[in-house]
Amino acid sequence: MTETTDAPRAPGRPRSIRADEAILEAALDLLAEGSTVEALSIESIASRAGVGKATIYRRWSGKEALLQDALRRLKPPPPEPPGQSVREDLIMLVGSTGQNADSRIGKIMPCIMPLVNRSPEQYRLYQEVVEPRRRMLREALRRGIALGEIRADVDIELAVSLLTAPLVMQRVLRANPHLDETDLATRIVDTVIAGIAAR
Amino acid sequence: MTETTDAPRAPGRPRSIRADEAILEAALDLLAEGSTVEALSIESIASRAGVGKATIYRRWSGKEALLQDALRRLKPPPPEPPGQSVREDLIMLVGSTGQNADSRIGKIMPCIMPLVNRSPEQYRLYQEVVEPRRRMLREALRRGIALGEIRADVDIELAVSLLTAPLVMQRVLRANPHLDETDLATRIVDTVIAGIAAR
Repeated sequence: MTETTDAPRAPGRPRSIRADEAILEAALDLLAEGSTVEALSIESIASRAGVGKATIYRRWSGKEALLQDALRRLKPPPPEPPGQSVREDLIMLVGSTGQNADSRIGKIMPCIMPLVNRSPEQYRLYQEVVEPRRRMLREALRRGIALGEIRADVDIELAVSLLTAPLVMQRVLRANPHLDETDLATRIVDTVIAGIAAR
Repeated sequence: MTETTDAPRAPGRPRSIRADEAILEAALDLLAEGSTVEALSIESIASRAGVGKATIYRRWSGKEALLQDALRRLKPPPPEPPGQSVREDLIMLVGSTGQNADSRIGKIMPCIMPLVNRSPEQYRLYQEVVEPRRRMLREALRRGIALGEIRADVDIELAVSLLTAPLVMQRVLRANPHLDETDLATRIVDTVIAGIAAR
């Protein structure tokens, strides 16, 4: 496995995983430092990670595939909600929207957002990051319908957008400085649920 | 008025207005072509508009003041709603969110959004653009409270975010490709109103 000898060493992990991590971390660091996705090159990632370009191409078909893995690493899908109360599940899913363990994401997501509708490749990346949470929200809403808590004719995609968009706008942009952010996820869920509750 | 002789000529308008317009249009064109706000300089705007830097500094104190005027020109405040039905007013205000007569705005707003929380100057610019619509939405909601249509204890800022964020996310980013966009403003308003209606 000669291609991994140029990766930084961390004790106790296989070398190939360390090289993967170093490469993904390099891409994320470059983005967090202000590189645009368009400006990011396999060359710049290789140089930052201290590996050769060939090492990267042995693992990924190109920049898009590498970035998909990097974004998955940065923003893992939310944990599956416990599936008890529909309201509690929605609060958990909405509350984790735009909340990120990795501090780089606050810098990277706003860089990616403006590119989303400039390139189809970028749009796919964005969708891949947000779709897992949307899927879980749909499932929670459908469970609410099955339980008779939510109207059967509810527009599920509209409900998903109402549940997530205000928090994304607030966490990524602090869009409305007048909005009280205390228990925001709970207040959003309760207002939307009131609008879509079964009569 | 020697400072305006270098502005492009358009018949029937005072020269100083023509120079103002050429300068603001130059700034907007540069942004729409992909310049970041940070990279935009008085020099590049002057060069694009075909005026001297002194011509710009006679009119604006600096880049921030110029950009504020440029954004106001690009995105004038929405027309005041007729003030008859609260629901109709909300639909009109929500429907005009993120909908722009000037096609450059689709390219400029996403460029500005990521900078919003990187620089206080940029954040003020963004707020100045969005605050007029928020003010009108608050007024419509307060009228709904006064009329007994909307609960008196409603969180107005939360309602404003619920009304606007889904459309912004959809129009600027096409955030949810599964969301049916037919009559989206009406469906958002009706769902939110159902959630905040007086009992």
